[in-house]
Amino acid sequence: MRGAVIHAPGDIRYETVDDARIQQPTDAVIRTAVTCVCGSDLWPYRGAEPTEHSHPMGHEYVGFVEEVGSEVTGLRPGQFVVGSFATSDNTCANCRNGFQSSCLNREFMSTCQAEYVRIPHAQGTLVATDGVPDERFWPGLLAVSDVLGTGWWAADAAEVTPGSTAVVVGDGAVGLCAVIAAKERGAERVIAMSRHESRQQLALEFGATDIVAERGEEGVARIKELTGGIGADSVLECVGTAQAMRQALHSARPGGSVGFVGMPHGVAVDGQELFFSHVGLRGGPAPVRRYLPDLIDRVLTGSIDPGKVFDLTLPLDQVAEGYRAMDERRAIKTLLAP
Amino acid sequence: MRGAVIHAPGDIRYETVDDARIQQPTDAVIRTAVTCVCGSDLWPYRGAEPTEHSHPMGHEYVGFVEEVGSEVTGLRPGQFVVGSFATSDNTCANCRNGFQSSCLNREFMSTCQAEYVRIPHAQGTLVATDGVPDERFWPGLLAVSDVLGTGWWAADAAEVTPGSTAVVVGDGAVGLCAVIAAKERGAERVIAMSRHESRQQLALEFGATDIVAERGEEGVARIKELTGGIGADSVLECVGTAQAMRQALHSARPGGSVGFVGMPHGVAVDGQELFFSHVGLRGGPAPVRRYLPDLIDRVLTGSIDPGKVFDLTLPLDQVAEGYRAMDERRAIKTLLAP
Repeated sequence: MRGAVIHAPGDIRYETVDDARIQQPTDAVIRTAVTCVCGSDLWPYRGAEPTEHSHPMGHEYVGFVEEVGSEVTGLRPGQFVVGSFATSDNTCANCRNGFQSSCLNREFMSTCQAEYVRIPHAQGTLVATDGVPDERFWPGLLAVSDVLGTGWWAADAAEVTPGSTAVVVGDGAVGLCAVIAAKERGAERVIAMSRHESRQQLALEFGATDIVAERGEEGVARIKELTGGIGADSVLECVGTAQAMRQALHSARPGGSVGFVGMPHGVAVDGQELFFSHVGLRGGPAPVRRYLPDLIDRVLTGSIDPGKVFDLTLPLDQVAEGYRAMDERRAIKTLLAP
Repeated sequence: MRGAVIHAPGDIRYETVDDARIQQPTDAVIRTAVTCVCGSDLWPYRGAEPTEHSHPMGHEYVGFVEEVGSEVTGLRPGQFVVGSFATSDNTCANCRNGFQSSCLNREFMSTCQAEYVRIPHAQGTLVATDGVPDERFWPGLLAVSDVLGTGWWAADAAEVTPGSTAVVVGDGAVGLCAVIAAKERGAERVIAMSRHESRQQLALEFGATDIVAERGEEGVARIKELTGGIGADSVLECVGTAQAMRQALHSARPGGSVGFVGMPHGVAVDGQELFFSHVGLRGGPAPVRRYLPDLIDRVLTGSIDPGKVFDLTLPLDQVAEGYRAMDERRAIKTLLAP
């Protein structure tokens, strides 16, 4: 079979790779319906994370069950399934607590920009839809598997409540999905921080009530102006840099919360500053599995359309161009169809 | 009047100081009923915080209203009052959000180890009891004004819920009060980390179900053993050192929460480690004012007795010995009576 492989920063190739096959009795193999390129794939692509040897790429997927291992029940070939970038047995203590992305048997998916994908712990990881959904829903369901699930978790971790004010730091696909999440969770005011016209438009379409184009301390000052001088109830940090974290922490009011879902790079939080801020902080890889049934339902009933974050669709064999377009910010997010 | 003054590390003197008097129309002056020495007073006493010039000490108090400013309503001379170490107008946005210790007009009390005390923003800061309580309740009410309020906040920030497992890091007066708080908030299991026999006994009396004497990573390993391998739902960090914070973060389960109330000294939290831990973190100076009516009620009805943290009572003029006894860990907490 064929799939995307990174050889070095900037060097993504679509080439022959090992066939996806059942290795454990708890595995399934799926035929990819659609997959995509994630903002976090750009860390190694840009050399911000090292690539010591060539390896496959991709952790987002929806597809058709092709084959299941002998211990998998409740899934059968032909079903359309949505999963998470983190596998989970969905039975361990952490899974039962709703933190499936800290499953004691967690594996991070890493071979999904390919024609077929092996899914470990398939029974606990995958959720099958009721019949095969119309193709127009595939992008939305693909978004559920990572960027919407992550934006949802940002709103959850930032404790967005009905009537509250939420700020979203970051206008990538996760940030834009975080706007959807904040709105769906009842925030009365959703302030999107974005300097890019096309992303601002999508944020407004997704439910943002205000746009702040300033960044850093200037951006914080604008947030304070918009929130009676004290800051926002909830801030959804969807970038992962030290600057974004600082901006998020300073934008929250005393007693407010920051949910941080951008994988931190070079972020350190000063204990005394956090102490006197009274701001709560929680983050991590999104427990997407917890949200899957609800989010799949919201997409299939048309109440949300997170698939709009895909503004470039390419055949899977043009995956390299998909990376380039995102790296150069020509695309928010690239959808890949085998 | 007379009060305690620090001149240098280790040098506390009881001497003549400026009289407490009304300076603003929102002030009150109280006559001290009892006051005490706080664990945080030991930071400057031990030289861990600089003492650049001599200044009064003390931020815990209960007393009798002596005089009120012209804008204070609802308080009158003779009333017995309980306050907080942080003043609050109790009307600003942060106060209305329940974070009175981030009041926009906050002042930290700092002259309370004295015969009389000026209380800024008296109307928003003080709560009068219904009549003058029996003297046996004074230590408990004094504890409410800081150490119990702070332990309560630790349990609140660590999101202790009924049936949960809570760990308390630190066996000072705040840590011991945090045991009370965790139990009162319904924790089924309260694990106190303490190496000191007398403090272990008080922790058990306050409701601890388990004692862990090990510290650092050994202590964390014991906590994991006691919690099915994953860690505790809630950890109450009542020390403020880097080691205590590390111990707290490592003792919480994925999805669990750390409430940190020991003023951080040299604490920095690594963003990526916090991310992958899935642990929530919230701390700060306790919003004692929010809890005052409830906690006063619990003390006066005898449902809790936090006054037991005072294991040494001295006349106020022996305040220097009160510091020494705590510094040498001969006393958990010293009560001072004018």
